Amino acid sequence: MNAYSPIGPVVGIVGAGQLARMTQQAAIALGVELRVLANAPGESAARVIVDTRIGDYRDLADLREFGKGCDAITFDHEHVPTEHIRALAAGGLQVHPGADALVHAQDKAVMRERLTAIGAPCPAWARVSDAAEAVAFAQEHGWPFVLKAIRGGYDGRGVWVCRTEADVTEAFAAGVPLMAEAFVPFERELAVLVARSPHGQGVSYPVVETVQQDGICVEVLAPAPGLDPEEAAQAQRVALNIAHELGVTGLLAVEMFQTAGGLVVNELAMRPHNSGHWTIEGARTSQFEQHLRAVLDLPLGSPSMTAPVVVMANLLGGDDPDLFKRYEHVMAHDPGVKVHFYGKEVRPGRKIGHVTVTGDDLDSCRARARHAAVHLTTGEYA
Amino acid sequence: MNAYSPIGPVVGIVGAGQLARMTQQAAIALGVELRVLANAPGESAARVIVDTRIGDYRDLADLREFGKGCDAITFDHEHVPTEHIRALAAGGLQVHPGADALVHAQDKAVMRERLTAIGAPCPAWARVSDAAEAVAFAQEHGWPFVLKAIRGGYDGRGVWVCRTEADVTEAFAAGVPLMAEAFVPFERELAVLVARSPHGQGVSYPVVETVQQDGICVEVLAPAPGLDPEEAAQAQRVALNIAHELGVTGLLAVEMFQTAGGLVVNELAMRPHNSGHWTIEGARTSQFEQHLRAVLDLPLGSPSMTAPVVVMANLLGGDDPDLFKRYEHVMAHDPGVKVHFYGKEVRPGRKIGHVTVTGDDLDSCRARARHAAVHLTTGEYA
Repeated sequence: MNAYSPIGPVVGIVGAGQLARMTQQAAIALGVELRVLANAPGESAARVIVDTRIGDYRDLADLREFGKGCDAITFDHEHVPTEHIRALAAGGLQVHPGADALVHAQDKAVMRERLTAIGAPCPAWARVSDAAEAVAFAQEHGWPFVLKAIRGGYDGRGVWVCRTEADVTEAFAAGVPLMAEAFVPFERELAVLVARSPHGQGVSYPVVETVQQDGICVEVLAPAPGLDPEEAAQAQRVALNIAHELGVTGLLAVEMFQTAGGLVVNELAMRPHNSGHWTIEGARTSQFEQHLRAVLDLPLGSPSMTAPVVVMANLLGGDDPDLFKRYEHVMAHDPGVKVHFYGKEVRPGRKIGHVTVTGDDLDSCRARARHAAVHLTTGEYA
Repeated sequence: MNAYSPIGPVVGIVGAGQLARMTQQAAIALGVELRVLANAPGESAARVIVDTRIGDYRDLADLREFGKGCDAITFDHEHVPTEHIRALAAGGLQVHPGADALVHAQDKAVMRERLTAIGAPCPAWARVSDAAEAVAFAQEHGWPFVLKAIRGGYDGRGVWVCRTEADVTEAFAAGVPLMAEAFVPFERELAVLVARSPHGQGVSYPVVETVQQDGICVEVLAPAPGLDPEEAAQAQRVALNIAHELGVTGLLAVEMFQTAGGLVVNELAMRPHNSGHWTIEGARTSQFEQHLRAVLDLPLGSPSMTAPVVVMANLLGGDDPDLFKRYEHVMAHDPGVKVHFYGKEVRPGRKIGHVTVTGDDLDSCRARARHAAVHLTTGEYA
């Protein structure tokens, strides 16, 4: 807790992961005073935000206490119960995104219902309450198909690509409510990040390509290489329209599949997003600054790029916990690569940081980003 | 004080002003854990650095306690007594810059002696112990001339341009040790920011022009417009040579006069410097990241520019304390301007922030920066 009066507006972020941590870089410049609700001291953002409160984001009393004196409340993750968000807003707090918008990022079935209603491109989908209904879905829409946990999945968790009835049985064994989606034979994955403010201003960042491994994003290419300008504009229109129709306030990341038949919306996130980390160096306004501007209902910043090509590569934890001893090689090898560490203990597969390279040439930017990411993660020379 | 173990290296900064505050933006990305020694809670950097200790930088015991567990110690200002810095280093702490270098930024007479010895271009100068010696200096080198406090001056304070003997009497009335310098009829002021690491690596940022009003820097133009490439290279050589000869570790800002007869060194600072704030958006490696890399003896980052032209304008406090109500106009008017607030209460004339504009055209960048700075300061539309 801070021992002084705020000078600038106070924004409370529920959750103290790397998104809140990186938001602090933007808050320092804007003169915005951040407060975070952490589970424990020493979490990623709690290391860099003075006004850290310890509490449980599932506990309404903790949330109410946390919100006192905040000019706006927002989120580092999407796990706060919808009814608590509603209660905070009813208590007079400015909560962005609001419950009616955020539920679409919390509940995949609600999201699909709404996107279908507004005409956003979706795969065939259905709520399924047991294996028999899932198999019936597959018989109609074809194998393989996808079962997804309606709530709580991320980074590939809570997603089952079902090729056989045994796969279906396995998915239901998880014991959580599921929905079915047709398997989309995509060419690549794209993401569009947009911001929308309470007074209704919207901006879209350039469409990016996201490269996944085992369901985890490993690389983002901005702008999406070779994307037809018409298709890029359509992707941005789809994302801005979703933000508008759902009443999103703050950031909205729309993950899409690019297919031979056009774009299909895959997932929504309503917060700064891994697919937007490249904006810290690569856009005039970082996604973190943009989110703060949006939730404070300030005019939005320019989303234009600072260089023709930007490549971001995630750092996933490897076997060796000592990141810092591999720092020197990366810094000496490439004085222009930007390294971002999240202040997290290394655990295998955990997102512990990212690197960003800006330049004119895609192949060279990718090679530079990959070299840095592989060396920092494994100590190998890629 | 933090309630968790550090994951990255710990850098202690003595002083909690805006330089330490902006260093936190770089530290967050590098995974460096900052600690600051503040005079009081609520100071600029104390608002954004969890591990804030309250103490007196003039007290060796406070400094020793502060330094415990730090991988390196550095400074937000140049007021720590030289003998304390020597004592900290003798106690085994890594202090950058070290006392033998820093004294040249603390004591202008020591600086002039050393610069003269290494052949760096200086005006005629002399130590003067009373008004008679000062007048004798003027009779030899001409009126007007300049008297400077040997220690402690900044932002135009501690500098007297003497045109008459009455001015000399007034300067000595301040009761501090003075030195005399010939008045330099300069065309404009330039600054060169270089970094040097303990293992001896050095880099130089592009030479910038600094525009002063009443002894305070109001605007920085990067690169210095129209500067002859040979003269720019010479300025960089002079600055790198000073860093090398003085054994500077960390950043060194060399303020210079450009005259018809060539360059003349005016002042030295050994820390991030107002003339380098443009590097946050305008250079691949910000001066704050560079300083951290240097004091941790990591390889230095690229100082290359991210755009052809970068203009920084300082925000000086005006009569109206409420900065934030003027935010909206500036953000709406120019979504590409970057605003940096220092988390300080507004006082007339106080440096409370700065704005940065990057682009291709000097005139338009200057106009945009000036519009934002004037409006944020005064509420007028420039």
